[in-house]
Amino acid sequence: MKGVVTSLKKVSEVIKEDLVSADGIILGCPTYFANIPGEMKTILDDWNWKMKVDFTDKVGGAFATGGGQVGGQEHVVVSLLLFMLHNRMVVAGPLYQNETTGSIWAESGAAAITGPLDPGVSEGELDGARRLGERVACVAAKIKGN
Amino acid sequence: MKGVVTSLKKVSEVIKEDLVSADGIILGCPTYFANIPGEMKTILDDWNWKMKVDFTDKVGGAFATGGGQVGGQEHVVVSLLLFMLHNRMVVAGPLYQNETTGSIWAESGAAAITGPLDPGVSEGELDGARRLGERVACVAAKIKGN
Amino acid sequence: MKGVVTSLKKVSEVIKEDLVSADGIILGCPTYFANIPGEMKTILDDWNWKMKVDFTDKVGGAFATGGGQVGGQEHVVVSLLLFMLHNRMVVAGPLYQNETTGSIWAESGAAAITGPLDPGVSEGELDGARRLGERVACVAAKIKGN
Amino acid sequence: MKGVVTSLKKVSEVIKEDLVSADGIILGCPTYFANIPGEMKTILDDWNWKMKVDFTDKVGGAFATGGGQVGGQEHVVVSLLLFMLHNRMVVAGPLYQNETTGSIWAESGAAAITGPLDPGVSEGELDGARRLGERVACVAAKIKGN
Repeated sequence: MKGVVTSLKKVSEVIKEDLVSADGIILGCPTYFANIPGEMKTILDDWNWKMKVDFTDKVGGAFATGGGQVGGQEHVVVSLLLFMLHNRMVVAGPLYQNETTGSIWAESGAAAITGPLDPGVSEGELDGARRLGERVACVAAKIKGN
Repeated sequence: MKGVVTSLKKVSEVIKEDLVSADGIILGCPTYFANIPGEMKTILDDWNWKMKVDFTDKVGGAFATGGGQVGGQEHVVVSLLLFMLHNRMVVAGPLYQNETTGSIWAESGAAAITGPLDPGVSEGELDGARRLGERVACVAAKIKGN
Repeated sequence: MKGVVTSLKKVSEVIKEDLVSADGIILGCPTYFANIPGEMKTILDDWNWKMKVDFTDKVGGAFATGGGQVGGQEHVVVSLLLFMLHNRMVVAGPLYQNETTGSIWAESGAAAITGPLDPGVSEGELDGARRLGERVACVAAKIKGN
Repeated sequence: MKGVVTSLKKVSEVIKEDLVSADGIILGCPTYFANIPGEMKTILDDWNWKMKVDFTDKVGGAFATGGGQVGGQEHVVVSLLLFMLHNRMVVAGPLYQNETTGSIWAESGAAAITGPLDPGVSEGELDGARRLGERVACVAAKIKGN
């Protein structure tokens, strides 16, 4: 997308300025027992309480990787979205359409099955991630009035 | 809020035009076994499949009533938000701030505990509902470019 | 498993005697907008309210099919488990182990990705379903004192 | 309940022997942004990966405190239950009945609203916690064959 500047960082390296200046934030992580890894959640908790970042009306999206068929990836995505909603953000997910039938839908986030079951990230999974990024950028641009 | 027109309807009485013309939609219901009542979910399912409504970038919010301390009201709110996200909507919740400490936060939706445990809807619960309506209207106005 | 009698029925064909006599119940369904289809939820709602079935200490498991990477299948599984928990059941999921590393884990239920994205039910998905059935039967036998 | 020995510990003080010897485990925590506090989740993650505890067929229950009407307490309860399910546990919630109408139900766990909104833990909230403890003990006794 034209005019969109992205920054890719580990949460442990994110500083307050990164969060304050962002119009959209996409959070992602592996799945630890159907939820956000404790180490990452500890960092996220501090963004509000220690860093005192105001996330109001920033646009959020979420993705997760997980090693199972019902591995908890979706619960991670929902948990990340709830983290963002409780921090006053607006959230959205990747858009899809079926060119043949014309049907349209979206998902709540992006995900990839990884590990022994399904090594690597497939093209379809990458496509979901790209759609997530595009959606968050589009909604953020609208909310910013661009 | 100035310039906001609202329409309050039972889902069973909503027609396609209501949904198409809305910039924001707030869904709410009682809690049946920790989820949306089946009767209401049947109607919601048809909004996409039978009515063919395009909800893209409409702004959504959710509320629920429930008769218990862990009565499932939150799972209803999350379920309604996921329904909206999967229908390509953008979702947000009510904003709060503590005037004394200056701390700010939000919730994922509004809710009221009802039934024998806590009859009626309290002032705090009404306040949450008002904040939800205001937030959805504000975000919808921004996305529409007003 | 020896000594286990199973009965496979559509929820629309289940009668009170089926539910009363069962020590374990596994519910499954397709995913409609990240949740249980409204038509099925309506039937489930009536099991308690109209049929007056007492589900106390029956053992429950859940599975779902869905047509996407973050298609809402997990939210369906969790929703079915919450339906059962709120009806006084005990719930459990399929057990897994890695023969090579010795690591052991479980999932919250079984699922299959279906539709254009991934037609059919794979061997791995069937394996998850079998493990779910075995787990529910084992826990039910223990609770019954067999 | 007769014959039930309980041990109350902070998760940071729990040692492997505590977990190995327990037939039932009830986890509870405050709500940080609609989920388990990161610090606690980090400890829980290690119970499996570092301590190598086998939780198979232990019985689990969950409770949470939170400072809001839709404060995320339920998402914490569900998250704790999913943590336990993914660690091969069986889970259940507190049983309730209405003496007048004869209706029976359960909830997915126990919770208390705390903070400025509703200081302290009410009698009803304590009652839910007691019911949760009793339920987990009863199911654990059944599974152990007592």
